[in-house]
Amino acid sequence: MNGKLQGDMVTVASPRAIKLHENSHFGQLIQEELQLPLIEALFLAEKDKLTLSTEGRELSRDEFTNVVRDKGLFTKYLVFKDLRNRGYIVKTGFKYGSEFRLYERGRSPGNGHSDFLVKVLTEDQQITINDFSSYVRVAHGVNKKLMLAVVDDEQDITYYNVEWTRP
Amino acid sequence: MNGKLQGDMVTVASPRAIKLHENSHFGQLIQEELQLPLIEALFLAEKDKLTLSTEGRELSRDEFTNVVRDKGLFTKYLVFKDLRNRGYIVKTGFKYGSEFRLYERGRSPGNGHSDFLVKVLTEDQQITINDFSSYVRVAHGVNKKLMLAVVDDEQDITYYNVEWTRP
Amino acid sequence: MNGKLQGDMVTVASPRAIKLHENSHFGQLIQEELQLPLIEALFLAEKDKLTLSTEGRELSRDEFTNVVRDKGLFTKYLVFKDLRNRGYIVKTGFKYGSEFRLYERGRSPGNGHSDFLVKVLTEDQQITINDFSSYVRVAHGVNKKLMLAVVDDEQDITYYNVEWTRP
Amino acid sequence: MNGKLQGDMVTVASPRAIKLHENSHFGQLIQEELQLPLIEALFLAEKDKLTLSTEGRELSRDEFTNVVRDKGLFTKYLVFKDLRNRGYIVKTGFKYGSEFRLYERGRSPGNGHSDFLVKVLTEDQQITINDFSSYVRVAHGVNKKLMLAVVDDEQDITYYNVEWTRP
Repeated sequence: MNGKLQGDMVTVASPRAIKLHENSHFGQLIQEELQLPLIEALFLAEKDKLTLSTEGRELSRDEFTNVVRDKGLFTKYLVFKDLRNRGYIVKTGFKYGSEFRLYERGRSPGNGHSDFLVKVLTEDQQITINDFSSYVRVAHGVNKKLMLAVVDDEQDITYYNVEWTRP
Repeated sequence: MNGKLQGDMVTVASPRAIKLHENSHFGQLIQEELQLPLIEALFLAEKDKLTLSTEGRELSRDEFTNVVRDKGLFTKYLVFKDLRNRGYIVKTGFKYGSEFRLYERGRSPGNGHSDFLVKVLTEDQQITINDFSSYVRVAHGVNKKLMLAVVDDEQDITYYNVEWTRP
Repeated sequence: MNGKLQGDMVTVASPRAIKLHENSHFGQLIQEELQLPLIEALFLAEKDKLTLSTEGRELSRDEFTNVVRDKGLFTKYLVFKDLRNRGYIVKTGFKYGSEFRLYERGRSPGNGHSDFLVKVLTEDQQITINDFSSYVRVAHGVNKKLMLAVVDDEQDITYYNVEWTRP
Repeated sequence: MNGKLQGDMVTVASPRAIKLHENSHFGQLIQEELQLPLIEALFLAEKDKLTLSTEGRELSRDEFTNVVRDKGLFTKYLVFKDLRNRGYIVKTGFKYGSEFRLYERGRSPGNGHSDFLVKVLTEDQQITINDFSSYVRVAHGVNKKLMLAVVDDEQDITYYNVEWTRP
């Protein structure tokens, strides 16, 4: 299965791509074509399920990884990969001001609502309590839990559940 | 019941003070006298259970409130008051690097271990993700939950539960 | 040896990079490529072991130093450099709420556990005794010693060992 | 054995006072009289080794405790008592800018130099890194170790050893 890198998207025109969307919830189907965000495409490429090309020529996996890194998406990719490998369906959380929304195992975009918003941070970041509080407020407002995913300098990820509470 | 402000402590010499300690877990009993931290004394003063004096003269409640403010303890006091009013026994969390440890309703220092550590923050504060990690690590290591209490500019308090998780 | 600055990371694709990781414990190897945190990359650049490029053009050492400063990492870098120059292997201490964990000479991430946690502070900082308590508590709980590294206005570093004690 | 409270000192004129000084290093001998700082006098009073009087009348132990508290010395007293009870000789550290100097068990003012300076803090204090650093510098300059004694709101004491180090 081959995908074409076009700007910030990878487009796959293949009947198998439709299956990939329906069974595993990758990307968006638009007129029988699968549109994949770069980090989802990299995930599939690393699992040998996708090859890539751009402007008519093949793109090696290293070249594609570099594209993702150059766009500053690698930290986000690490969290995506880790959560997918743990069995979650992971979709963008953009509408909620966070990196991902997460479906518990057994749930998916067409079947129940997402349970978590995931905010990706790095160990060297400073956050204000105001930022922190706004992440939680948004999550609470849409009835989801907030998960912080902190990527450290060794690229290990530490997760925290945060919820608003009335003691 | 009158208490004497002496440095960082308020001392109460009264049989009723002993009851206050035994039933409600205020302060420390030292040789039949009750020693109260300033924030506990202010709490009792606001509930009309304690009057205050210092160096032989009476101290009005406003004067005493100012003492607590001058020592930078008012934010901490607000959280203490709120948690006590909600029915928790609230004791210092210093040994765990946080402001308070909290006993669930029905538990107390002499009866079961504390369930929460409470870290007091203000709306305008910045924290590093590293400090955040340190607070959670301590709580996790002693099998308690971490609660952040954020006091905003209107002195409202928002609480957050935070826990380390493996998704 | 050239590294590409990509967001918060520097990527080096070179067989010598693999040696650098295996012998000197810099960065993380991901698919035969070395991923370096910015402070490790700056350290290698200052030792003339690494040149840097970004988006296809070369980056002077001054430009790269500025990137590190802009991200607020220069103080942390100074402590990293000093400790590496003294012969320690220095890795992130994020999981323990401090900037670094430190392996004594002769020990390394693959060979024995780390002995120190290093908390980086600056001369003008205020810390609460509560935060201090939290740092020591974490270190004690994981059987490591706590070292404070204080960077002064002249960028000199003073180190302090701190341990919880029962006199 | 009776002592007279006179301002910030208690004076004891008794042959047994001389023994107390020579064997246990309490106070200062001045013209065959023992001059005791208030916290040492309170320590002896609590051990039933000293009664107190002032201006010709007897002072009960509670009254005397109140004098010590009114002068804001009670926190300092708690640390003094704890360290004496652990077997240390404890003398003022005033010349070194700290509350106490401490002699290891078996050492004393006339026999070897003191090993520790003790800085007494309370949980609600903020310290600047500059303060912290100056405590250590003074201790290091006179070849002693610095011990921080932090008294929390429950009047428990946590001790920390701090030393300047060259890693």
